[in-house]
Amino acid sequence: MAGNSFGTLFRLTTFGESHGLALGGIIDGCPAGMTVDLNAVQAELDRRKPGQSKVTTGRKESDKLEILSGLFEGKTLGTPIGFVIRNEDQHPKDYSDLKNVYRPSHADYTWEQKFGIRDHRGGGRASARETACRVVAGAFAKQLIGHYGVQIIAYVSAIGRLEIGDEAMDFDSIENSLVRCPSPSISKKMENHLLELKEKGESAGGVITCKVTDSPVGLGEPVFDKLHAQLAKAIFSINAVKGLEFGSGFEGSKSFGSEHNDAFVLSNEKVQTKTNNSGGIQGGISNGSEITMRVAFKPVATVGLPQQSVDNLGNEVEIKAKGRHDPCVVPRAVPIVESMVALVMADMLLLSRSNKL
Amino acid sequence: MAGNSFGTLFRLTTFGESHGLALGGIIDGCPAGMTVDLNAVQAELDRRKPGQSKVTTGRKESDKLEILSGLFEGKTLGTPIGFVIRNEDQHPKDYSDLKNVYRPSHADYTWEQKFGIRDHRGGGRASARETACRVVAGAFAKQLIGHYGVQIIAYVSAIGRLEIGDEAMDFDSIENSLVRCPSPSISKKMENHLLELKEKGESAGGVITCKVTDSPVGLGEPVFDKLHAQLAKAIFSINAVKGLEFGSGFEGSKSFGSEHNDAFVLSNEKVQTKTNNSGGIQGGISNGSEITMRVAFKPVATVGLPQQSVDNLGNEVEIKAKGRHDPCVVPRAVPIVESMVALVMADMLLLSRSNKL
Amino acid sequence: MAGNSFGTLFRLTTFGESHGLALGGIIDGCPAGMTVDLNAVQAELDRRKPGQSKVTTGRKESDKLEILSGLFEGKTLGTPIGFVIRNEDQHPKDYSDLKNVYRPSHADYTWEQKFGIRDHRGGGRASARETACRVVAGAFAKQLIGHYGVQIIAYVSAIGRLEIGDEAMDFDSIENSLVRCPSPSISKKMENHLLELKEKGESAGGVITCKVTDSPVGLGEPVFDKLHAQLAKAIFSINAVKGLEFGSGFEGSKSFGSEHNDAFVLSNEKVQTKTNNSGGIQGGISNGSEITMRVAFKPVATVGLPQQSVDNLGNEVEIKAKGRHDPCVVPRAVPIVESMVALVMADMLLLSRSNKL
Amino acid sequence: MAGNSFGTLFRLTTFGESHGLALGGIIDGCPAGMTVDLNAVQAELDRRKPGQSKVTTGRKESDKLEILSGLFEGKTLGTPIGFVIRNEDQHPKDYSDLKNVYRPSHADYTWEQKFGIRDHRGGGRASARETACRVVAGAFAKQLIGHYGVQIIAYVSAIGRLEIGDEAMDFDSIENSLVRCPSPSISKKMENHLLELKEKGESAGGVITCKVTDSPVGLGEPVFDKLHAQLAKAIFSINAVKGLEFGSGFEGSKSFGSEHNDAFVLSNEKVQTKTNNSGGIQGGISNGSEITMRVAFKPVATVGLPQQSVDNLGNEVEIKAKGRHDPCVVPRAVPIVESMVALVMADMLLLSRSNKL
Repeated sequence: MAGNSFGTLFRLTTFGESHGLALGGIIDGCPAGMTVDLNAVQAELDRRKPGQSKVTTGRKESDKLEILSGLFEGKTLGTPIGFVIRNEDQHPKDYSDLKNVYRPSHADYTWEQKFGIRDHRGGGRASARETACRVVAGAFAKQLIGHYGVQIIAYVSAIGRLEIGDEAMDFDSIENSLVRCPSPSISKKMENHLLELKEKGESAGGVITCKVTDSPVGLGEPVFDKLHAQLAKAIFSINAVKGLEFGSGFEGSKSFGSEHNDAFVLSNEKVQTKTNNSGGIQGGISNGSEITMRVAFKPVATVGLPQQSVDNLGNEVEIKAKGRHDPCVVPRAVPIVESMVALVMADMLLLSRSNKL
Repeated sequence: MAGNSFGTLFRLTTFGESHGLALGGIIDGCPAGMTVDLNAVQAELDRRKPGQSKVTTGRKESDKLEILSGLFEGKTLGTPIGFVIRNEDQHPKDYSDLKNVYRPSHADYTWEQKFGIRDHRGGGRASARETACRVVAGAFAKQLIGHYGVQIIAYVSAIGRLEIGDEAMDFDSIENSLVRCPSPSISKKMENHLLELKEKGESAGGVITCKVTDSPVGLGEPVFDKLHAQLAKAIFSINAVKGLEFGSGFEGSKSFGSEHNDAFVLSNEKVQTKTNNSGGIQGGISNGSEITMRVAFKPVATVGLPQQSVDNLGNEVEIKAKGRHDPCVVPRAVPIVESMVALVMADMLLLSRSNKL
Repeated sequence: MAGNSFGTLFRLTTFGESHGLALGGIIDGCPAGMTVDLNAVQAELDRRKPGQSKVTTGRKESDKLEILSGLFEGKTLGTPIGFVIRNEDQHPKDYSDLKNVYRPSHADYTWEQKFGIRDHRGGGRASARETACRVVAGAFAKQLIGHYGVQIIAYVSAIGRLEIGDEAMDFDSIENSLVRCPSPSISKKMENHLLELKEKGESAGGVITCKVTDSPVGLGEPVFDKLHAQLAKAIFSINAVKGLEFGSGFEGSKSFGSEHNDAFVLSNEKVQTKTNNSGGIQGGISNGSEITMRVAFKPVATVGLPQQSVDNLGNEVEIKAKGRHDPCVVPRAVPIVESMVALVMADMLLLSRSNKL
Repeated sequence: MAGNSFGTLFRLTTFGESHGLALGGIIDGCPAGMTVDLNAVQAELDRRKPGQSKVTTGRKESDKLEILSGLFEGKTLGTPIGFVIRNEDQHPKDYSDLKNVYRPSHADYTWEQKFGIRDHRGGGRASARETACRVVAGAFAKQLIGHYGVQIIAYVSAIGRLEIGDEAMDFDSIENSLVRCPSPSISKKMENHLLELKEKGESAGGVITCKVTDSPVGLGEPVFDKLHAQLAKAIFSINAVKGLEFGSGFEGSKSFGSEHNDAFVLSNEKVQTKTNNSGGIQGGISNGSEITMRVAFKPVATVGLPQQSVDNLGNEVEIKAKGRHDPCVVPRAVPIVESMVALVMADMLLLSRSNKL
């Protein structure tokens, strides 16, 4: 089944295995006439790329974007935007002894059972390397929604048990933090924690917080294509995501209605809410407040410690990873979360153009 | 935009406002030749219907299902199954003084902004009454996946701050519990809590846990239509849902990779996992283990206490609900969660038929 | 597989067997705020309904439309419009001796092979009775596109070998003609021809011409969803259609480029074409000229004469139809063609809202 | 709107402008485990490529296919197959004086009106060069359906007024004919006719006949996704197509039901039809007989003769084409028609896997 497309009007389709020749994709439905800042697109890719700091994987990829169509004299044509990113630093040999073995909590076993065949080199299509294409498309989507004033910001709010509490946050400092945490003090602790984990061959999970500001009121298509339903699909399609909350989330389920409800007030003759427990979405439709979500990532499955597993011949085996990997995905997952959110917002913005006569 | 369909091969499309003539839907893509137990379908509807106990809304609807097509001599024809549920106990007058007012944390404001018009009677299409149609289709989906041995069970694991901890659970007792909690001791506490809230005009949120057992290995279509991505969209499309976790969820994000990974073992020559932190899904594909999720619902927005709001003429107003409502949605949401999960599993089961030559 | 929906943004989903309880459908994506003339919708249904004249089938159906949702105080809500048409004049007994027999050039054999089961009563879902729902949705679509000035007109241009040549046409007279032919002289001949055929138990085919006037420039989404590609799918989904031409069609394939090309000229400072061999569509996009098509229908498969066939037990048999039927479908197919064209135009109109920034 | 994808389960998405860097596409949903003959894929591309003979355009493109993903050790992985074809022989300068002019019966005017911008170089995305990607995907689809015994053959049955009548046809000779006509005598006449036209700067249209043999019974998804409805969309999405018939087509509309019906007979205990006026499809579902269609192409719009037109500044102008072009598209369109038909058959084959329990 064709599961490699995302979106209805603003639609991304991607291809590519981790250690194949290239990754790439097609962005279809980007409206015509948009001036594209290609440096900004490449900059987003660079935020995601491997080997960017001492707390990420050692794989080195330049992730140089090549746009093959859809732009003319700097503007979108309204035709599909085809793009390719060549794989360069492939070490498929690293994985040859994992050819017949199922790595725990990886996709090796399920993909092989599903398709009867798998590309074992670095996880093949199951590798998070695939998300580079999402970041390219997300960068286009950001420019589209940015045209209408919508902004997306994401950051690391927890790594393992280290999380931002009452600490001051400086959103302008996110990109200065190796772990993309806006609290300088926590950021430093997280960085040290990851270095320790990397040393040990251990890994950690974490939480990314994402906010969409200045969304127009009215995005989201009830009843099945509610704004947060589409966002949820987008977010859970990212590798390693295990949890998601909007607004008050799980904690809000413990409150009473009278305290949880977001009272409407008038501010400069505009309807606003006094609180934002709803996380900017009511009845599946954006209400103009900040859209807020928290995304939980499990610890990276690849660890340098010995693990119990089985092979595809029916033997129990012990394995120990040799491939390069991150000790924690969340720092590099920040632009991925932003991108998936941007894809949804762009699609919903276009869809909303059909709501009224 | 057409947002009232769900699924690709097994697809539900629904219609209906809370206080209109009827609700209904079309189930398209149910394979031919399936013997249908219509009593079981009606029984599922009865699990969801209003007025079923003292802890639910006072609205009385018989929710009598009328199937109009798609069945012949007790079996599915492979043609669309059209169905209708008439609305009977409509009190649109209850809502007439809310015609121009936006109830806090309801969809009144967002729908009116989006469409420029709204049916204010009981929330119109934004009312959870719409989910009755999901339960009908879910009951068909359950019978389809049941044919392949797949079972779905959901229950209330928390209401407000009352939650199941180490208590013994008796899954056979769920339907005997007014709140659908499998722990008899907690169930009784929850029931009393809801009666108190109802008395006060207050409301609560809660958590539903859902498990899918005996799923075949191989369901879910990477990279965007991963099993849990589709489940997430399904779950977040349900009214009042604010959070979702699979497997270890948010708590798992605090663990280390070596402790979180689910080691593979052989049991009776079958590949299984020693633990199930993955919640039955790896790389977006079912691995044969129990699929587990936890769903957080916010407190019901309709409360009998005075609240601050605004009207559509630009005045700040105080409102107090008069319409009938539940003090907490989770007891009646149990069959809704099950239904949405069943729809996804049925669709994924059919989609997986195309994975191999 | 779910094949009972049509359209992307303006989407119709239908259900119903010929001799089941009811037919019906859901129109999803009709923009909010449109004042609906329900009498006009019923009038379209009446144009299609059986038993409307001496040249149609003897089946009597009032085809009374019941709208169940989606409208509020006379306007569309932006929510799905559910509707039902009850079957009244069912004579399932007429078909009981055809239970095990495959009628030639009907869908009996193919449906049974495909699904392993079929509703033999009057063709079940394969009956053209299903198209009543298309006419309902088409009537809504007509009102939507009519709002933007787009008009659709169809008429019978040939029945068997009787066809309009140089005869004068009076488009206002179409509904006065029992066969919906705008040439009064040919109309009378066609009518007599059909009465003779009915007498003999014989049937005829024919051609419907359809024109869309005042279409905006720019409808159609290349490269796969070209305007005429979507129209073609729409038209060929109608029972008994075997051929379709746009503009110059098959005859145009015999001309030279220099004579076939539609020269651009300026008329009142507007770009127009001198000729319209393109049939109003260039590169899959409407160019503002009249969109023209010709649709060929095969003769009705149900004839009162003895025919050779086989049954599902593997015997060769001779059959003779007893069910009521039309001697020719084209008079009643006129509103069906218009409806399918209207559905495409409405969808394309909404889709085009996303073409530019 | 995203109109560059085709198919539901076996889905092609394409990109690329005629004089951009490259064309390419993604084939998503090709089942895993299929051994792919890449030479056969390149051979199909070569059948379509420009400059292949004296009766085609002078543009020279090697059309060398590069597959970037989806294959592993010669087999399909079940993951998307990304591919790229670089444009080499670009003469964008040829088109610079057409930058502001709308060529008659081309897509220049409609695309510019629709998107507000266009790539004027060789028609940009509107050029038939785009169909190279369809041929790549069609070649994969052919291999998939070939696995189940389904074969597709197409040929030129008419160019201008030269058409095959009672002449003997030798289907094995099609590829030996420069015009892909299976009648050697007519082929020679067509070839000479095209050389004359090329000399004059004139162009012609033509007809392609296509047949699908050994289709399983049961393909096609009523009521809207009937087999011939999907084929019609596929065929009309090809540049320059203006007409399509299945089976008896327009001529059949002139016959009587008793003579047109395809009587069922038993042949070796198999149900077959005595005649095939239905063209292999009944009720929108394949009946196992040969699926037959005839496709009319208009004359090529680019001619070397002076033509009247307008420019985008509002002036009437005279233009004369300088770009390279074919005098008639049908010889090179043969593999394109086959490819679109193959895409539909592959998709329908996969979809039919869900018809029964």
